[in-house]
Amino acid sequence: MNASLLDDLLRGVAIETPPRGLAGKLKESEKEKRSLIVKLGFDPTAPDLHLGHAVVLRKMRQFQDAGHKLVIIIGDFTARIGDPTGRNKTRPPLSPETIKQNALTYLDQLSKVLDMSREKLKVCFNDDWLGAMTFRDVIGLLAKATVAQLLQREDFSKRYNEGTAIGMHEMLYPLMQGYDSIEINADIEMGGTDQLFNCLVGRALQEAEGKSGQIVLSMPLLVGLDGKEKMSKSYNNYIGLTEPPHDMYGKAMSIPDTLLPMYLELATTLTAQEIARLKEDLAADKVNPMDVKKLVAANIVTQYHDEKSAEEAAQYFYNQFQNKADEEKSYEPFAAAQIYEGAQELALLDLCARLCPQESKSQLRRLIAASAVSVDGEKLTDPAALIKPPVDKEIHFRIGKRGFYAIIS
Amino acid sequence: MNASLLDDLLRGVAIETPPRGLAGKLKESEKEKRSLIVKLGFDPTAPDLHLGHAVVLRKMRQFQDAGHKLVIIIGDFTARIGDPTGRNKTRPPLSPETIKQNALTYLDQLSKVLDMSREKLKVCFNDDWLGAMTFRDVIGLLAKATVAQLLQREDFSKRYNEGTAIGMHEMLYPLMQGYDSIEINADIEMGGTDQLFNCLVGRALQEAEGKSGQIVLSMPLLVGLDGKEKMSKSYNNYIGLTEPPHDMYGKAMSIPDTLLPMYLELATTLTAQEIARLKEDLAADKVNPMDVKKLVAANIVTQYHDEKSAEEAAQYFYNQFQNKADEEKSYEPFAAAQIYEGAQELALLDLCARLCPQESKSQLRRLIAASAVSVDGEKLTDPAALIKPPVDKEIHFRIGKRGFYAIIS
Repeated sequence: MNASLLDDLLRGVAIETPPRGLAGKLKESEKEKRSLIVKLGFDPTAPDLHLGHAVVLRKMRQFQDAGHKLVIIIGDFTARIGDPTGRNKTRPPLSPETIKQNALTYLDQLSKVLDMSREKLKVCFNDDWLGAMTFRDVIGLLAKATVAQLLQREDFSKRYNEGTAIGMHEMLYPLMQGYDSIEINADIEMGGTDQLFNCLVGRALQEAEGKSGQIVLSMPLLVGLDGKEKMSKSYNNYIGLTEPPHDMYGKAMSIPDTLLPMYLELATTLTAQEIARLKEDLAADKVNPMDVKKLVAANIVTQYHDEKSAEEAAQYFYNQFQNKADEEKSYEPFAAAQIYEGAQELALLDLCARLCPQESKSQLRRLIAASAVSVDGEKLTDPAALIKPPVDKEIHFRIGKRGFYAIIS
Repeated sequence: MNASLLDDLLRGVAIETPPRGLAGKLKESEKEKRSLIVKLGFDPTAPDLHLGHAVVLRKMRQFQDAGHKLVIIIGDFTARIGDPTGRNKTRPPLSPETIKQNALTYLDQLSKVLDMSREKLKVCFNDDWLGAMTFRDVIGLLAKATVAQLLQREDFSKRYNEGTAIGMHEMLYPLMQGYDSIEINADIEMGGTDQLFNCLVGRALQEAEGKSGQIVLSMPLLVGLDGKEKMSKSYNNYIGLTEPPHDMYGKAMSIPDTLLPMYLELATTLTAQEIARLKEDLAADKVNPMDVKKLVAANIVTQYHDEKSAEEAAQYFYNQFQNKADEEKSYEPFAAAQIYEGAQELALLDLCARLCPQESKSQLRRLIAASAVSVDGEKLTDPAALIKPPVDKEIHFRIGKRGFYAIIS
């Protein structure tokens, strides 16, 4: 087994259960000359993927690239049931058509990260096996878990201790997800650290069936743009995988400085060495966080679109940002009466010379020619353009990078 | 509605849920001109019925006699599964043949208490509906209960708090039993007070289905012959419904005095007035508990056999008891050499005269003729029977009620 491959595959992983389990599975794969089966479950009620999901998906892609196979399980069994209590209006049963449509949208998004070729990826619907189970089968499944084990799940134990109702059917969901692992003979299940419990149920059920248990790799949860909660659609703190380049770049530029090391690690394709160096530089204040952010933003747009889109997005962002900066700039005020003294109107070059007496006319002419002079946000390149004094308003001039002037009527 | 009928039906009932529920159901029955459906579940793994079961059965018989219908549910669904964890060796899955055989044995025992006519009693097997349920149906069923509700069951909460494992499948059993109530449209479920929880689950499930919930009547638990635990085969403190008259009578005579009021109330067919009077007399020491016990024993044997068997059993018990009493009696010892002085053998009458010189020979002759004289437990009626002196042993004589003599070699 290739030790550096193992290092690569474990890079960024938060929890490996059991410890050294992956090394064991890779050896098994080599010995038995077979690909490992990596499980990925998908709830077809929420098909919008974001960078938080991509943390796990990108790790899976690494496994695909190392020759292993991904099995995607569309959880249509529960989606078709919806909320059996009927209390949860946001979880109505989905029709087979909606599920299929959501699955297609999902696969389309996955294609931004994963290798979708048939030998590297298989798609299943778990209604195929869960829908075929009888009450008797369910009892057999439930006999493999105890109430106390399931109540250990963090949200369950919290609700139980708070006295908030836990429907008996909710206790089935981890078991169903676990049963999927038995059905597809999963070698590896991956998820966010918040999915660890469910993944471990799958391992326990496989072992209760006398099979070799899947190993579980938990990836850290990416914190969202708010810098507080995990990235999630419901917190509106996310960057979606299918967002246009401009939006993606702009959102990436709003990543809080403190999260830059996390985003470098979990959201970029930079090498381990590059990431290590940037993290060091950030920690030592040897680099402007804004510059690192530009790097991260460009890298993200390149991953989900392409390099050209990333460049354009950067330019677009710069312009937007610049305009925005302009708006927020304090303009040096001049009275129209003073500047226009004795004139009904003035040529742009003359106006600039009056606002900016420290600059030579030839320098001003060059700035105008280089589009570095704008009036009320509009770049003017004709030095002879005539400009009238403002009536009941201000005119904003920008001359070069640092000259901001307002003529007030 | 007949108020005295209501009183009769509620007589001996420990818990009625909801309060006044039975009056409501009886009114409904009158108004809709239909019989009420009384549910009786049976676990086909344990077909030995005893007086403890009969407490509930006799109450059901009252409902049959009032025109209502009993639906017996043979719980073959779980019996066919056995213990799905495989840990409990005493609960192997039962074959359909064994279940049928157990059901027949059960029905045979029921016939000792219930009206088995077709219009008064129906038998169902719950595998017919539970066995047909899919995983989806199970989820719908489980959604109607919460974890906390089920953990309220006394044995569950005890085990949970002690940290003893509760298999998830065990939590299903109350729900399955409850589902049976939906299926047969039960109006009334009856059971011991230890079954109250399961019965209430049935009521809750019916209501969750938008149906009228069954009312629950809990009968007190009959304490067994040990005076401590509830009557149960596993404590070996029971009187079986099919035991022979002699055993039944003998066991009944071992009921602890303190339990006589309970047995009068829960195990006899005496009228409310008779029971009230006997309880008062017992409390006031106006009656010998042994005499009340004879009454209870005879009543029980009469119920499960007949009056003649009860009389014979009483006689048999009396003889056994008397013999036993004899054995425990202290015998007045005489040396053989002294009694037989000068004789090789003696006629019974002469021997009695020598042992009992205070009695006249004519009185002794009468006692012998009345079978009131026995030698070593054997009644002898021939006054001329020759009796040799004992060699290396004792001979025990009983003469009349109070004369106990031993001739020692």
